[in-house]
Amino acid sequence: MKNILIIGAGRSSSALIKYVLNKATQQGWNVVVADSNLELAEGKVKNHPNGRATWLDVSKVNDRRDLISRADIVVSLLPAHLHLEVGHDCIKLNKHLITASYVSKEMYRLGDEARDRELIFMGEMGLDPGIDHMSAMKTINDLKAKGAKLQAFRSYTGGLIAPESDTNPWHYKFTWNPRNVVLAGQGTAQYLENGKLKYTPYNRLFKEARSIDVIGMGEYEAYANRDSLLYKDIYGLEGIPNILRGTIRHKGFCEAWDALITIGLTDGDFPILHADKISYHELMDAYSDKELGNSVKERIANLIGQEINSDVIQKLEWLGLFRKKRIGLPNATPALILEHLLLNKWKLEEGDKDMIIMQHEFEYELEGKYKQLTSTLVMKGEDSVHTAMAKLVGLPIGIFVNLVTQGRITSKGVQIPVMAEVYEPVLEELKEYGVEFIEKEETLS
Amino acid sequence: MKNILIIGAGRSSSALIKYVLNKATQQGWNVVVADSNLELAEGKVKNHPNGRATWLDVSKVNDRRDLISRADIVVSLLPAHLHLEVGHDCIKLNKHLITASYVSKEMYRLGDEARDRELIFMGEMGLDPGIDHMSAMKTINDLKAKGAKLQAFRSYTGGLIAPESDTNPWHYKFTWNPRNVVLAGQGTAQYLENGKLKYTPYNRLFKEARSIDVIGMGEYEAYANRDSLLYKDIYGLEGIPNILRGTIRHKGFCEAWDALITIGLTDGDFPILHADKISYHELMDAYSDKELGNSVKERIANLIGQEINSDVIQKLEWLGLFRKKRIGLPNATPALILEHLLLNKWKLEEGDKDMIIMQHEFEYELEGKYKQLTSTLVMKGEDSVHTAMAKLVGLPIGIFVNLVTQGRITSKGVQIPVMAEVYEPVLEELKEYGVEFIEKEETLS
Repeated sequence: MKNILIIGAGRSSSALIKYVLNKATQQGWNVVVADSNLELAEGKVKNHPNGRATWLDVSKVNDRRDLISRADIVVSLLPAHLHLEVGHDCIKLNKHLITASYVSKEMYRLGDEARDRELIFMGEMGLDPGIDHMSAMKTINDLKAKGAKLQAFRSYTGGLIAPESDTNPWHYKFTWNPRNVVLAGQGTAQYLENGKLKYTPYNRLFKEARSIDVIGMGEYEAYANRDSLLYKDIYGLEGIPNILRGTIRHKGFCEAWDALITIGLTDGDFPILHADKISYHELMDAYSDKELGNSVKERIANLIGQEINSDVIQKLEWLGLFRKKRIGLPNATPALILEHLLLNKWKLEEGDKDMIIMQHEFEYELEGKYKQLTSTLVMKGEDSVHTAMAKLVGLPIGIFVNLVTQGRITSKGVQIPVMAEVYEPVLEELKEYGVEFIEKEETLS
Repeated sequence: MKNILIIGAGRSSSALIKYVLNKATQQGWNVVVADSNLELAEGKVKNHPNGRATWLDVSKVNDRRDLISRADIVVSLLPAHLHLEVGHDCIKLNKHLITASYVSKEMYRLGDEARDRELIFMGEMGLDPGIDHMSAMKTINDLKAKGAKLQAFRSYTGGLIAPESDTNPWHYKFTWNPRNVVLAGQGTAQYLENGKLKYTPYNRLFKEARSIDVIGMGEYEAYANRDSLLYKDIYGLEGIPNILRGTIRHKGFCEAWDALITIGLTDGDFPILHADKISYHELMDAYSDKELGNSVKERIANLIGQEINSDVIQKLEWLGLFRKKRIGLPNATPALILEHLLLNKWKLEEGDKDMIIMQHEFEYELEGKYKQLTSTLVMKGEDSVHTAMAKLVGLPIGIFVNLVTQGRITSKGVQIPVMAEVYEPVLEELKEYGVEFIEKEETLS
């Protein structure tokens, strides 16, 4: 197995392609990087002797299959909804498949066929999902092996801006898909607390953000993800009374974001008319009632229950929401208007460093004591291209490709990385790249 | 033109089929009623000598085209997303098409082809949309003809329960698609007030419901629809400073519905896990924080900012939301759980009468005075089958079919009923069925 096909050469591919090309030299692999933007692919392959960049329109079935047929292992970095087609091709052509995306129900349905052909279809092999699964499973299995009875598992991840590049009052810049940030949390967050189900709807999600103490970094805040219960059984935590997955933000972010929700700026379902003709100031005026105050700013402050000089209003002002500047987006949804505005304001500048924080909190009973283990990863990027995000998404995939070529993976079918034969070597090799969790243990009672 | 095909024999078809069969006797039409449920179609045709019921699976292209090819006029009462296929068939086979649904962008794109073939594709030919367009246009054009300068147009419609059948604290029963009621208002309501755009997001829509005085009926309340601006130009109201379309509800409904939104019960996008295993009481518990009170009811009351004995809490209690009864719906969304519960509680009983209220408010300047004209339709159904809703949706379509067969419609292409050659005869004939607007004029200043 020495022919590796990577489909997609976008933002998240750099660290992966670099890793795979390095290994290619040592191991004699042939690496093909395919993208609809040939220059992008060429820029990543950089004339590497073992690499080749090629143009691919994934919607062209024959071209896609032709490339896949000549590979042994296929890595798909395509947008999530396109993986399934590639999955079908890989079944047909007998190829292993790796992605960093959430595994869809449809993809899981290919499990039997993949297993029959002795193929591994590994999904959720990036950062979140990916490293979160692996690092959590390692600790959970270690604790269980010691005889611990797990009482709580809380896992938080945030793609943030490093303090040295933090130059705005939101303390946030886009290091990942802006649309996902704007629409984050829509739906109902679900988790377990003291053995009881908890549901938090979108209209209360950011209001009810919790404070968390990140080892070595101080206080942050986190809001609950939609999917905390999904992994309970697959993690082997069937009877656990507390389970929560959350997203980390800088202190104060959630209160201000909740203001945007209350105003109405995160609705992504329906376009508003005349969005091309009005200014941000008129937009804010349109959202607020004239009975609420004289100036538009005063009205918005009253609408969201804030003082006019509050931090939240200052954050809104900094975004330019009270400026008499035209929006200029015909038939845009409010969410699209917001995204467009934020793209400018929250842009990662060239020298900016991003920062990933992942923190797991485990509470457990062991030998009559109630203990807490906190396991924390903090990693900063080098600059706006070589981000921690790209590294932490790409490296696990690369390491896993290597494990597959070496025949070290016995798992078959559609999987996510929760088995020791995957997480042990991947986490071990990640340490060589500075990806290491710091642990802190406390006895609570 | 004497062959009429009606596709769909569901809830909204009875009054239409009855009207068309009556006319068929007089005019020698052949009427075919097609449905995927043959018995339903047969039950509506009742062996009428000019009628025939037939089984049709609309997804079977050949069967569908075969039926359409033998008709002169096609009425589609299918779910809205299925009209387009029928529209393409009608273009291909040169047939007129009538629906009561909102005209989609895709349907509008068939306009040129329909016009080239001298076909009329009439959409929005029911109650709302339908009678609302026709009655508004008649008054708007009458006022303009008198020289009035329109300053405000507000149009409200509600499908309600008649006071004599009003037996529950919500003062509401389902007389139409329950799912649409549960998901109503999601998005951003858009309207014009004093020449300014107004946007109201879902999280504030029911909080900001307005009180309206319905002639002869007293005080009701209304929340703004998403689409108030859409009809401004087509109604010929380009420069009007105030325009609003709204939905009428009984007093107190909106405050209680807003509580359901705040709790989180109207989220229809994502299923919650374990919905099959828990009770309504546990569901409410899961939505509320234990710090908010001792009992679940107290917590919910505090969550929505109500006293525990308030009308709103009593409405929630009456729905059974605090009962320890299992929900029993695997992987349901909160909205589906709510719909399921309401279907039972808000069921129209056999003898129940529904009631439609439609009220237009026009403000205008005429001869130096500022005046208001209020035009109101109140209509009650006979029972749970012969509803005012079915009558008011079906009769305009039937009358329009008759107009087309008589060659009285010169409009071609994709249209909605805003032209005098349609609204004049339709509104006139509706009076024979007791469908008449009462007008009240006041001089405001």
